[in-house]
Amino acid sequence: MPGEKFKIIENGSITSPQGFLAGSTYAGIKQGNKLDLGILYSEKLCNACGVFTTNQIKSAPVLVSQNNLKNHKAQAIVVNSGCANACTGRRGLLDARKTASLVAQKLSIDSENVLVGSTGVIGAYLPMKRISGGIKNLSLTKSGGMDFAKCIMTTDTFNKEIALQIRDGGGKFILAGVAKGAGMIHPDMATMFCFITTDALIHTDFMGYALKKAIGLSFNMITVDGDTSPSDTVTIMANGLANNKPISKNNGAAFQEGLNYICTYLAKCIARDGEGATKLIEVIVENAKTISDAEIMARTIACSPLVKTAVHGNDPNWGRIVAAAGRSGARILLNRLNLYLNKTCVMRTGEPGKFNAEKLSMSMQDSKEILIRLDLALGKGKATAWGCDLSEEYVTINSAYTT
Amino acid sequence: MPGEKFKIIENGSITSPQGFLAGSTYAGIKQGNKLDLGILYSEKLCNACGVFTTNQIKSAPVLVSQNNLKNHKAQAIVVNSGCANACTGRRGLLDARKTASLVAQKLSIDSENVLVGSTGVIGAYLPMKRISGGIKNLSLTKSGGMDFAKCIMTTDTFNKEIALQIRDGGGKFILAGVAKGAGMIHPDMATMFCFITTDALIHTDFMGYALKKAIGLSFNMITVDGDTSPSDTVTIMANGLANNKPISKNNGAAFQEGLNYICTYLAKCIARDGEGATKLIEVIVENAKTISDAEIMARTIACSPLVKTAVHGNDPNWGRIVAAAGRSGARILLNRLNLYLNKTCVMRTGEPGKFNAEKLSMSMQDSKEILIRLDLALGKGKATAWGCDLSEEYVTINSAYTT
Repeated sequence: MPGEKFKIIENGSITSPQGFLAGSTYAGIKQGNKLDLGILYSEKLCNACGVFTTNQIKSAPVLVSQNNLKNHKAQAIVVNSGCANACTGRRGLLDARKTASLVAQKLSIDSENVLVGSTGVIGAYLPMKRISGGIKNLSLTKSGGMDFAKCIMTTDTFNKEIALQIRDGGGKFILAGVAKGAGMIHPDMATMFCFITTDALIHTDFMGYALKKAIGLSFNMITVDGDTSPSDTVTIMANGLANNKPISKNNGAAFQEGLNYICTYLAKCIARDGEGATKLIEVIVENAKTISDAEIMARTIACSPLVKTAVHGNDPNWGRIVAAAGRSGARILLNRLNLYLNKTCVMRTGEPGKFNAEKLSMSMQDSKEILIRLDLALGKGKATAWGCDLSEEYVTINSAYTT
Repeated sequence: MPGEKFKIIENGSITSPQGFLAGSTYAGIKQGNKLDLGILYSEKLCNACGVFTTNQIKSAPVLVSQNNLKNHKAQAIVVNSGCANACTGRRGLLDARKTASLVAQKLSIDSENVLVGSTGVIGAYLPMKRISGGIKNLSLTKSGGMDFAKCIMTTDTFNKEIALQIRDGGGKFILAGVAKGAGMIHPDMATMFCFITTDALIHTDFMGYALKKAIGLSFNMITVDGDTSPSDTVTIMANGLANNKPISKNNGAAFQEGLNYICTYLAKCIARDGEGATKLIEVIVENAKTISDAEIMARTIACSPLVKTAVHGNDPNWGRIVAAAGRSGARILLNRLNLYLNKTCVMRTGEPGKFNAEKLSMSMQDSKEILIRLDLALGKGKATAWGCDLSEEYVTINSAYTT
């Protein structure tokens, strides 16, 4: 729930903050006449930061965007779905640069201030004629944010976007975000995009700090460390048009809170929209020895295929949860562990709990969100991770998807 | 293929070595009137070693067996399927000890020389009356090895056993092994058992060393480190009845070679029998900077759900292989990488290879074993890992399996 400092803007999008425009089109990169190319643009040059995949294999767009963000400035982002332009060697790099420069020409801005994002099949070259034609055709509007959210979708089943009106001591501003991601049983390659916009005046150093913090609570808690796609990208652009008192570490609490909210909201959307998923799984680990213990354990449980399949089958097979906890690397003492599944205590201080398995199974069947909570009774560390159930549909999607 | 030093015994089992007897019965632990309880017995007290799960949550039988192996001696193993006796607290521990002592009574041996193994549902107590009745009914025979292989199966679709006749400078002896394991897309909880028997005279120190070495090349290469069940157990028992010249490090080459062969054979059986699997995947990483780099990369690829689903769909979607390699943590330079899928070069020095995707897909369709080979051109490290494809059937099995 939003705090007192901010409220959700109805039908908000990344073009809700002042000075942002967006547009998208069907350029013919994807099959099926769906939006597959988009541009996000700020009328004023932005302070900007990005966080990119930790995969050693980085897509060409990631390399170009990392380079263009060295001066912490950006004014536009061009994205496409249908082709990731990853593992495409020298030609791929030239294609990504060319894409940025075509957008720069169209908008009469510096090509170094254009970021690039591509998602889709790995190992295929960008169809540059279609990209070029699409960029030409595309028109930017104040209401273009919602279509932009659609043009980055691949196996996503719904668009993921949110905008907040934030008020702090120094004035008011808007913060918005859009994301895509197919969420996966083991999110090792689902490209994840999140683009955040704001009209706040904000110091770049603090913005980068706040972004990393928010990502740690959100996107990193739906992804096992290192399990990244060559294209994963999160960026934030701030154009300062709100003319608030400049935000820095000293007065950044409301901004941070809003950013955490947006990132967590979008991360949960990604988990909920996991390929073939029918349920969101929320795993809370509390009273762990340390926060990082709580994080690794929550993530390990949320990623376990056996936990995910049990949830899919509405099977309160809690032994699988305990086994995943035990192999996570985080400290655990079985005789202190209390484990709750949808609020029913299934294990108390290391002994099987007394509960009606049939009733619990029925409660799982009725829930779109399954809650798993472990109380380790070892310290004060706490963390929450999100995942989704694993269904036959996931396999069908991923056996059939491309080449 | 076996080397010159040993040959495979037709219809061999763990009772092929001299002095070993086994028996099994349906005790009523599992549903469906299938063998679910077995005893392996050596007429002579054995030198024995074991390697157990690294999961912090250890089943009661693992704790009992670890304790009983402290003196490196064993004479019998009692195993059951249908109930893992894990997460069962103090009562579970007493049940496991009671099981060992019932077997000791039956065989008139010391209860400390009885090892225990249980596989099945976690969090349920052993039905001790049925266990006790089963132990009483069961009779041990020289031909009991094959039924023993069946009584440890859970979702396994075939029994996994092998026996070798080995000849070295010091005489000849028999080495045999049996295993169970459901192999999984991400083998985080498939209980894995492997029991090895031999009539060789062998020093315990060397036997323990050789066992760890063989496990490193085999079972650890179908399991990501730490992804273990609370019940994983590998044991070896040597009764010395072959009266060969005692084997130690100096003259242990043939023994080691045979043990490697047995463990690798059984590990591949487990991978091939992965729940719902239709294909075995073999991943070879060569010319890595180090051996451990090669190991972690081969395992990461073999475990990737996206690689597994692509193989299931006969889709030569090699980008998924590269992405898994890139996130494995092992060093990789894209512009040196050569990647082969079923011997077709799909990426050469970092550029997409020129190949007929349709033809390659058809070759995948025709293969029961899919070969993935990466040449990193960074050093001399080499490793092989095994996995299986991921099918809809896997999800169905694991959504429905128990409570």
